[in-house]
Amino acid sequence: MQIAILLYDRFTALDAVGPYELLGRLPGAETFFVAAERGPVRGDQGSLALVADRSLAEVPSPDIVLVPGGPGSRQAMRDGVLLDWLRTADTTTTWTTSVCTGSHLLAAAGLLTDRRATTHWLTLDDLVPFGVRATGERVVFDGKYVTAAGVSSGIDMALHLLGRIGGDELAQQVQLLTEYDPQPPYDAGSPRTAPAAVVARLRAGREETIEAGG
Amino acid sequence: MQIAILLYDRFTALDAVGPYELLGRLPGAETFFVAAERGPVRGDQGSLALVADRSLAEVPSPDIVLVPGGPGSRQAMRDGVLLDWLRTADTTTTWTTSVCTGSHLLAAAGLLTDRRATTHWLTLDDLVPFGVRATGERVVFDGKYVTAAGVSSGIDMALHLLGRIGGDELAQQVQLLTEYDPQPPYDAGSPRTAPAAVVARLRAGREETIEAGG
Repeated sequence: MQIAILLYDRFTALDAVGPYELLGRLPGAETFFVAAERGPVRGDQGSLALVADRSLAEVPSPDIVLVPGGPGSRQAMRDGVLLDWLRTADTTTTWTTSVCTGSHLLAAAGLLTDRRATTHWLTLDDLVPFGVRATGERVVFDGKYVTAAGVSSGIDMALHLLGRIGGDELAQQVQLLTEYDPQPPYDAGSPRTAPAAVVARLRAGREETIEAGG
Repeated sequence: MQIAILLYDRFTALDAVGPYELLGRLPGAETFFVAAERGPVRGDQGSLALVADRSLAEVPSPDIVLVPGGPGSRQAMRDGVLLDWLRTADTTTTWTTSVCTGSHLLAAAGLLTDRRATTHWLTLDDLVPFGVRATGERVVFDGKYVTAAGVSSGIDMALHLLGRIGGDELAQQVQLLTEYDPQPPYDAGSPRTAPAAVVARLRAGREETIEAGG
């Protein structure tokens, strides 16, 4: 089973590495970071670069595609080569997945039309012009299309996928191995629970927030 | 403020990238991935490489040091140059931190003697010979030394640190930006809560488990 994790300029690191850490532990999985060309691809904060070990052309028919989000997704949505690769890869995948604004790329490729999907809470409206039924849920399954909300939600998505692919016990083993027993010191991870002033601050600076890696 | 995240061969990716994603958003922070030499450093699954933009020699006096864990920590604990760098860097840090078996490196450098600290739940006993008071807590503060348990716990540690350094509102903003509102589909992230058979499986295969990225 080939898992292809797409990289593009100014992706958000945790969107890609959270699910990688868990999904890469599927027995028999071959995981590749892929990009237009082989080599380092720099993330949205500028201080991290992940190496793409394969070019898009070298991974034409993956079993799982994972598209991270990030401020660079706006540029990537206009990249015909990348969208063509997504459409072609999707013809062979058993799961086509995204984290955060990665779903905007899937939508731009026409893969989410009339489907339920999610994205970062600040950018849900941006999915609507693509005919997507945008929901605010953390992880959304619609057939083989699986989308996760902002950044850290890819970890939850990966556990769901591990369970579907390898069974509950495998997923639980990976959860225990990665000690995913979250204990955030604040309850501010969702606009439903965060202090109103914090939500308002991010909404008011929506463009800056998205540029910062929403 | 300089944040130095240490890389070494066969580190666990999420140990490094989880805290990076959050801490890197500290206003004014300059974050560097550092390693013995500049260039790509490959993680424990073999399929990921992060680029070290600076060599250890180029970052002699960081404000925050973060040491990820991983199966490569056993080799790294015997690397005199790396341990010397940790000791020297520690003389200027305001926070010296680790995730997972990263605390074993801090312990080997003599920085955790007589201190409370944590690590991956399967490796707590390994801290004892270094005079560390090992606890099973998820995030442990002892003065400026902050250690986190396995892999994903670095995200919780980063939120604690953001709160201490930048205040609760900043930490909450970053939590909301990264949509850290965990909803794991299983309650298996700790040996206290995981099904007994799952805990037993990982304990029985302890060496394999650690080699797999504990």
